Amino acid sequence: MTQLQIARKGKVSKEMRAAAMHEPVSAAQLRKLIAGGKAVIPANAKHKGLKPIAIGQGLRTKVNANLGTSPLNASAKKELEKMKVAVKYGADTVMDLSIGGNIDAVRKAILRKATVPVGTVPIYQAFFGKRIRDVTEDNMFSAIEKHCSDGIDFITVHSGVSRKALPLVKKRLAGAVSRGGSLLLKWIACNGKENPLYKNFDYVLEIAKKNDVTLSLGDGLRPGCIKDATDSAQLQELRILGKLGKRAKKKGVQAMIEGPGHIPLNEIERNVKMQKRLCNNAPFYVLGPIVTDVAPGYDHITSAIGGALAAYHGADFLCYVTPSEHLSLPSVQDVKEGVIAARIAGHAADIAKGLEAARQWDDNVSSARKKLDWKKTFELVIDKEKAKAYRKRSKVKGRECTMCGEYCALKGL
Amino acid sequence: MTQLQIARKGKVSKEMRAAAMHEPVSAAQLRKLIAGGKAVIPANAKHKGLKPIAIGQGLRTKVNANLGTSPLNASAKKELEKMKVAVKYGADTVMDLSIGGNIDAVRKAILRKATVPVGTVPIYQAFFGKRIRDVTEDNMFSAIEKHCSDGIDFITVHSGVSRKALPLVKKRLAGAVSRGGSLLLKWIACNGKENPLYKNFDYVLEIAKKNDVTLSLGDGLRPGCIKDATDSAQLQELRILGKLGKRAKKKGVQAMIEGPGHIPLNEIERNVKMQKRLCNNAPFYVLGPIVTDVAPGYDHITSAIGGALAAYHGADFLCYVTPSEHLSLPSVQDVKEGVIAARIAGHAADIAKGLEAARQWDDNVSSARKKLDWKKTFELVIDKEKAKAYRKRSKVKGRECTMCGEYCALKGL
Repeated sequence: MTQLQIARKGKVSKEMRAAAMHEPVSAAQLRKLIAGGKAVIPANAKHKGLKPIAIGQGLRTKVNANLGTSPLNASAKKELEKMKVAVKYGADTVMDLSIGGNIDAVRKAILRKATVPVGTVPIYQAFFGKRIRDVTEDNMFSAIEKHCSDGIDFITVHSGVSRKALPLVKKRLAGAVSRGGSLLLKWIACNGKENPLYKNFDYVLEIAKKNDVTLSLGDGLRPGCIKDATDSAQLQELRILGKLGKRAKKKGVQAMIEGPGHIPLNEIERNVKMQKRLCNNAPFYVLGPIVTDVAPGYDHITSAIGGALAAYHGADFLCYVTPSEHLSLPSVQDVKEGVIAARIAGHAADIAKGLEAARQWDDNVSSARKKLDWKKTFELVIDKEKAKAYRKRSKVKGRECTMCGEYCALKGL
Repeated sequence: MTQLQIARKGKVSKEMRAAAMHEPVSAAQLRKLIAGGKAVIPANAKHKGLKPIAIGQGLRTKVNANLGTSPLNASAKKELEKMKVAVKYGADTVMDLSIGGNIDAVRKAILRKATVPVGTVPIYQAFFGKRIRDVTEDNMFSAIEKHCSDGIDFITVHSGVSRKALPLVKKRLAGAVSRGGSLLLKWIACNGKENPLYKNFDYVLEIAKKNDVTLSLGDGLRPGCIKDATDSAQLQELRILGKLGKRAKKKGVQAMIEGPGHIPLNEIERNVKMQKRLCNNAPFYVLGPIVTDVAPGYDHITSAIGGALAAYHGADFLCYVTPSEHLSLPSVQDVKEGVIAARIAGHAADIAKGLEAARQWDDNVSSARKKLDWKKTFELVIDKEKAKAYRKRSKVKGRECTMCGEYCALKGL
């Protein structure tokens, strides 16, 4: 049985109990959220060593870190190192988006080591090494089946991409920038057929249900620049995703909905609220949103701005964006910076949403800071190594820092 | 005559004409904003080589970079280097907050080289090298006079700090974290007298008026942690600042109001709107706001989140925060990162506010990106060196990047 089916029967699973321990809700309340499709626990029965977490309404904002090889950068070892760093700095899940080297081996190595839920986009593998026109429907479903039976906890399926989207995407400045969405659109255009993940969505549900794999209904048409934000292609897909989410829920399959993308600041609240309305409050998983196109090299910052605002308005799950977005595959350092920026965004939103545990963290840091107790401060902050290095660099001997020296405002009063 | 007096007479100055060229308003419209106290042009008649800019309602969001020595770090050369980098990456103004070494020499060197408006906090110098109890009222006003006659374009005066604030500040977790505010509170506590900058505000106005120095009415009681946000100390001072702003306007002295500080995401809109209401829509100059206390080393990010939201809701001027905030005096690299983060925040807000020129920048970048025209992209982005370095690092030969390689979504469709 899936967590959704268990919840619907009024039962609290051990996964719900474990996940609720880190949340502002009880296990019983979490069960209700899951039964209503407002929260998910991505936990494949075959993923050994997994520490279950929940994603959804009113819960702590979660952060995902994307890992994965590319044809030009295909070391499994490097990706494992990235996972370690990502989890250390607070990633709640990782996704293996490998499209280079031995894809199966990388995925299995990540799954073996991961205590956090692992997600993938199986159709990448279906398209791997083939000409787009040669990919068969069977290739796609086989990839999905393989990932699900390997123990993957959640998979992105771009089931909202349909033939009807083609003319809408052609009107755009940046077209389709989702890797999966663009592959499927090209496949549709080549073969003149409908997207199999859309047409045969029931089959997707059947496979996912077997091992309780959570579906992440992908936004293959997410806007790739500010000009394309909240356009007809994006909204047409969102409406489809809402309907597919309903079908998943009916069949007892856990589902979340993916969202944009590049969105200007003033449209973020509207985007989140529209998603929640059209998708019956299913968990919302956003990439960014990135609030300006002009800052490649700094998209961990452009997305932290958008992500904080999105999470405050109700997005439940933030996919990190690293400084190397739009430029290259991230390095280990990029992964670290991406995770920390997304964690800052999620945490800032959790404070704003009134999560007491989130607020307590800040108060603890500030109490230590007020006392100029550096040891305690370093223990508590998001990145003790960086904070320590900054202080060390200044070679100061007193308790104050080099910003104000003896004029330190924290001393006295 | 000050720009405010000129504007009130219905005249358009050459400074207004020059400043309006970079704004979405005409010189005549800018004149109206200045006459109404809704915009300022910080331009000391004695500052040679200044390119005037305007700060205020409906204008492009401006960014300030703080420079300045500290007792433990007092190289004038280093501060000039920081200014160069700050202006290169888009700082609209700089403030010299020196409290170490030869303060007069550093200020004069910065003024000589600066084509952007330069601000200071004169009372730092009044307190420099003295015991707090020994500082006289005359020391404070002499410092103000010296900075104004040197050619400084805007000065922070913490005239809103009053004796009444002492018990309110004592209730706080972090107390007073503004360097100037804390010095004045200590002075008040030592001497049992009222803050001279509050008591003799008319004298401050008289000095400022002489060279048309714009007053930045400092928030000496800005909250220094999330717990102290929007508290009675902050609000009591804001009400005073509103009244002082009115008095400045009446006397023909240009003024802006400084604001917080550490503020949770959900209180930012309220803070900005309250300031605008209590201060008759005077330009609002915010430091951050920083939306969480837990991320020293990343406060350029915590403040970019808060700054973007504040600017979207009406803040006009963002003081940058660097990664070294709370830890040490910033390095040249920190200055660069701080300016870029604040610029991203201001620009994201300008897009959201509907400034056409801001949006056009994004569209230009995205057009180049869609074509995988890297040369053009690099020319347009906020930091071409960093973007180039990321691409170079990946040693890719084709037009795509190492994120997706041959599966690049931008190719085709």
